[in-house]
Amino acid sequence: MMRAMTHRVAVLGATGYTGIELLRILLSHPSVKVTEVVGHGKAGLPIASVLPSMAGLLDGVVASYDADRIAKNADVAFACLPHGASAKIVSELRARGMVVLDLSADFRLRDPAEHATWYGHDDAPELRAQAAYGLPELFREQIRKADLIAVPGCYPTASILALAPLVKHDLIEDAAIVIDAKSGVSGAGRAPSERTHFAETTEGFRAYKTGGTHRHTPEIEQALTQLGGRATKVLFVPHLSPMTRGILSASYVRLRAGVSFDDITSKARAFYEGSPSVHVLDAGACPDTLWVRGSNRAHVSYTLDARTGWVHAQGAIDNLVKGASGQAVQCFNVRMGEPEGAGLLHAAMWP
Amino acid sequence: MMRAMTHRVAVLGATGYTGIELLRILLSHPSVKVTEVVGHGKAGLPIASVLPSMAGLLDGVVASYDADRIAKNADVAFACLPHGASAKIVSELRARGMVVLDLSADFRLRDPAEHATWYGHDDAPELRAQAAYGLPELFREQIRKADLIAVPGCYPTASILALAPLVKHDLIEDAAIVIDAKSGVSGAGRAPSERTHFAETTEGFRAYKTGGTHRHTPEIEQALTQLGGRATKVLFVPHLSPMTRGILSASYVRLRAGVSFDDITSKARAFYEGSPSVHVLDAGACPDTLWVRGSNRAHVSYTLDARTGWVHAQGAIDNLVKGASGQAVQCFNVRMGEPEGAGLLHAAMWP
Amino acid sequence: MMRAMTHRVAVLGATGYTGIELLRILLSHPSVKVTEVVGHGKAGLPIASVLPSMAGLLDGVVASYDADRIAKNADVAFACLPHGASAKIVSELRARGMVVLDLSADFRLRDPAEHATWYGHDDAPELRAQAAYGLPELFREQIRKADLIAVPGCYPTASILALAPLVKHDLIEDAAIVIDAKSGVSGAGRAPSERTHFAETTEGFRAYKTGGTHRHTPEIEQALTQLGGRATKVLFVPHLSPMTRGILSASYVRLRAGVSFDDITSKARAFYEGSPSVHVLDAGACPDTLWVRGSNRAHVSYTLDARTGWVHAQGAIDNLVKGASGQAVQCFNVRMGEPEGAGLLHAAMWP
Amino acid sequence: MMRAMTHRVAVLGATGYTGIELLRILLSHPSVKVTEVVGHGKAGLPIASVLPSMAGLLDGVVASYDADRIAKNADVAFACLPHGASAKIVSELRARGMVVLDLSADFRLRDPAEHATWYGHDDAPELRAQAAYGLPELFREQIRKADLIAVPGCYPTASILALAPLVKHDLIEDAAIVIDAKSGVSGAGRAPSERTHFAETTEGFRAYKTGGTHRHTPEIEQALTQLGGRATKVLFVPHLSPMTRGILSASYVRLRAGVSFDDITSKARAFYEGSPSVHVLDAGACPDTLWVRGSNRAHVSYTLDARTGWVHAQGAIDNLVKGASGQAVQCFNVRMGEPEGAGLLHAAMWP
Repeated sequence: MMRAMTHRVAVLGATGYTGIELLRILLSHPSVKVTEVVGHGKAGLPIASVLPSMAGLLDGVVASYDADRIAKNADVAFACLPHGASAKIVSELRARGMVVLDLSADFRLRDPAEHATWYGHDDAPELRAQAAYGLPELFREQIRKADLIAVPGCYPTASILALAPLVKHDLIEDAAIVIDAKSGVSGAGRAPSERTHFAETTEGFRAYKTGGTHRHTPEIEQALTQLGGRATKVLFVPHLSPMTRGILSASYVRLRAGVSFDDITSKARAFYEGSPSVHVLDAGACPDTLWVRGSNRAHVSYTLDARTGWVHAQGAIDNLVKGASGQAVQCFNVRMGEPEGAGLLHAAMWP
Repeated sequence: MMRAMTHRVAVLGATGYTGIELLRILLSHPSVKVTEVVGHGKAGLPIASVLPSMAGLLDGVVASYDADRIAKNADVAFACLPHGASAKIVSELRARGMVVLDLSADFRLRDPAEHATWYGHDDAPELRAQAAYGLPELFREQIRKADLIAVPGCYPTASILALAPLVKHDLIEDAAIVIDAKSGVSGAGRAPSERTHFAETTEGFRAYKTGGTHRHTPEIEQALTQLGGRATKVLFVPHLSPMTRGILSASYVRLRAGVSFDDITSKARAFYEGSPSVHVLDAGACPDTLWVRGSNRAHVSYTLDARTGWVHAQGAIDNLVKGASGQAVQCFNVRMGEPEGAGLLHAAMWP
Repeated sequence: MMRAMTHRVAVLGATGYTGIELLRILLSHPSVKVTEVVGHGKAGLPIASVLPSMAGLLDGVVASYDADRIAKNADVAFACLPHGASAKIVSELRARGMVVLDLSADFRLRDPAEHATWYGHDDAPELRAQAAYGLPELFREQIRKADLIAVPGCYPTASILALAPLVKHDLIEDAAIVIDAKSGVSGAGRAPSERTHFAETTEGFRAYKTGGTHRHTPEIEQALTQLGGRATKVLFVPHLSPMTRGILSASYVRLRAGVSFDDITSKARAFYEGSPSVHVLDAGACPDTLWVRGSNRAHVSYTLDARTGWVHAQGAIDNLVKGASGQAVQCFNVRMGEPEGAGLLHAAMWP
Repeated sequence: MMRAMTHRVAVLGATGYTGIELLRILLSHPSVKVTEVVGHGKAGLPIASVLPSMAGLLDGVVASYDADRIAKNADVAFACLPHGASAKIVSELRARGMVVLDLSADFRLRDPAEHATWYGHDDAPELRAQAAYGLPELFREQIRKADLIAVPGCYPTASILALAPLVKHDLIEDAAIVIDAKSGVSGAGRAPSERTHFAETTEGFRAYKTGGTHRHTPEIEQALTQLGGRATKVLFVPHLSPMTRGILSASYVRLRAGVSFDDITSKARAFYEGSPSVHVLDAGACPDTLWVRGSNRAHVSYTLDARTGWVHAQGAIDNLVKGASGQAVQCFNVRMGEPEGAGLLHAAMWP
């Protein structure tokens, strides 16, 4: 048996949650060697002291950013940087020929005007058109050919995966898409804040960025619009749930006149045929974030409320894996010609 | 100043969560004396050993059920018994002239057919018509005159309080009411189960009883129908959130043509004028279950998504207080002519 | 019946956790009127917006600090200020004749040298000797006569209450006192930090400030030394447990030769006769922080390990109530001649 | 490069927490094929429905127990069965020539009298002497040659690993070993109970089985006695912490006269040279259960309290991995001649 080629990989922003999670996944990936662990505030410190979970597994110190050195030591870069800060660095790495998987939002919206509306400025407009939206289940072919892959947000991943088969087959009324999504606290990142302070989080459940103001809104609309072939709008309402990981996205939709609920689950299963990360549950079953925690898996289900005619489409993922770092590795696999599930076919950690 | 009359009160089902919470509230109530602490499985055991939180505060043993003795020792009974088991006991206590606050679902639905549909059997049909639905903010006058008060479920309380001003003023389209509600685990009661096992709850978020099957559905519809004067249907979807207490109910509604969002908050404030337990937040604000935990307060707010036209009406309560035992005491106060907030004007425990 | 006198009370530092908890307790106290709600960073803002749990219960804005105004409007001040910042303000309020209950550490250690060793500087040395250590169960008489009361730390309260009967009766060897204490996260206060960030707290259990470096060490030693009449040293090891409230302190001690374990529990019960906040469990029983959460109660127990001869003395409290704000009110009651349990005889919130 | 041999493996008790965790680990093990997934109550049901975290990863149904079939289909068995139930089945599998890793307590105590004292009966006395105690860091050579390996308990693993270097080098006084250990709730298994009910666990911290009654006590004493060459006794006190996974064991010991604390950390590091799962932190550092969660790693540290002379030895593990299933796989690797870390060198899941 031929040994798989080993890809030399850089992780930028390695000490934030998506960076740490990437390291966890990549250290077990059969055809990857992590050659650059790049941080910012922690540069120069031993990895084992900054990330005690890596003690004994990953030697050396956190490196500072140097585009030339990184491009020399690695073929592929995963950028786990804040929105806004990412574009410039991605641009520098791309200029040096690296394949870049960008976990920020800087290249997710294709329309520059839309990007400007939601994010204010646009630091690398020339790259926007090149970027593939890194949701392999929908855009596998684009990812295969792209050198810049904009890895989707966590909420869009959970929401789009549940809605995609319905939109693709033109089953639902446009006007009625309400998405009520619930996320674990790790989605807010590693910087301490009042919103993520244990004592004010542990028994608190709340919505935030309501009234259509959350930046994941246009990302969901863009993917559904592209998939369905006509402009789609959603009401997207995010919530913070007192747990560390996990997203459960509930979409409430109404079927078009004449569409039967009965074969929706089988249509969704056909839609995800060949997608190793998506599991469609039986109609009426309820996904649980616990069942996917720590894994790159998405659980999706469809339920009809016959009394009112509403259809309830649910998607559950781990926001840091299928919603971020795992999905980035999945895109990497697709792009590099590795098996799509390489290094990703772990079961959830339960409990 | 005249000293308030002291009411002699019995608590039945005192060792379940709503019973324990009732004891906690009643022990600080200025015009109540708890004269009967009645349990079932724990009868005969010292209260201090069964309920260590009461050690040093409440002497004696848990009593067994005896309608004659209870009616002799107490004027008012709070029944914290399982659905189905409650009706017979309530009937016996009513027959002995007691005022009864029933926290079960046995008398919440006025229509016997509706009750039969959702609960199967009907053990005390003759009492059904006498029962007032114990949501004081909507049905204060009925409660004042009733000797049997059916205290509402936790989800209905949070959902109805947010929707009532909209329904009362006929502001919303009937067809589009979607309620996505999230509850803490204590709502499932004190009996251990797989669903409430710590290790499978703490990082799990999930819906349950979906597809319009949860028994709180008809209760919500009944109250809104009665308030609005025409048949109202809702899609009600409950979720379990990994926290002990709290409900956040999100209702998604569409305004009738010509209705402006701008004065909805002020209309809601006018609606709850004189209701000491309800606080209407500014438009666009997000209630948090943490802000009401341990208190008899409900926080309500309204948010418009101008992009899609959806209105997002939220209600937050503590499921064991305003959603159960506190609301029962509030009904007791109304019925007995005590100030509606007597023993109930505590701030939430924060954090 | 005579109506109790109403004391006019100021709360300084009202927007931190001990300040919020004080407000919660004082609003239900039968003989207290809160006349001053003083903050620092939040001064000028409506109380209802800064502390949503008080919305509808406490009107007005957060006041800024002004010693003259406070002394005019209130008779008693509760100071919930950071260590170091408290001494100067306490000094100013005392100079204006106010009775002050100081929840900081600034006056807990009687020996100026000991204070300097552990806290660095000493901003009001002239007041140190006047301060009573506010643990009513041990120092009730001193508290009754003091105008400055230094309310104990949370760990010392839980630890001393379990050890006091043993030390008072000279039952244990001095050399072997090991205290392994576990605290909820609210003890770290309201300022967000990495240590209290939800995602890194919720599944983390860890010791901190080990090696005898925690500042509660000398406070425990001072009280035991004073009580037992000879110098006592302890190893004190604090831990952070992933919960919001509660302290369980485990002390491991060896009985002096000839001392029998058999009557230790009854000796402890006799020791706490007349102390409404302390409940001594049966020998071998295990206190649970859940049983005292939200209450001003302390649960204490003693267990013998016959195989090794070690005695295991446990104390459980709510760190924010009996470990801080409730104990301050208890001291207030003692000082003002109110019943010791006034406003404090609530049962724990369970669950 | 030669491809590693693939071992055919059976997992018995696959639907409990240690069984599920074994499946999670073994599915990613490079030289293992799981050929038998055996359950009891769930036999006959699809694995994907019983264990949704395995949906799409592990096909087939849960098999019932049949010693002949299992011995035919697998070479090695992992038995995740309750204490008492395991011995008979282990005996049957051993009789058919299988190598057995038993995660129950049935063969952990070598002395039949000691086993009888703590567990009551002895169902396979003839196998007791053959069993190796499966703590590879201490008993690697015995494990290499054994066909029955008794995988240690979770508390003993964390406690012994911290104490072993001290005992081996004869550094501490025998009389003074106090072990105060804290465990996540998953250690109590998958069966719901009042003790693990979310609402009574999440804010509760408590000791249990105190007074030297926990069955892990003799296991700790046996290993330390064997290692140090003389009878050693410990006071072992377990606690339940409101988290799912993790054990932090704190041992309080006194150094023998003349022993210096200064080189204890380096002695421990030398002791664990060549042990890939143990990481010794710098003196005075505090391990955190979060840093090892989901991994087969143990973090150990030593701290001196110079004021009192106590040494505080800490060990942190994930109770389900290094404290159970991961350790079982580590023993399997040692026994089968695989690299000791095969399938086990994953970083902790953080956060």
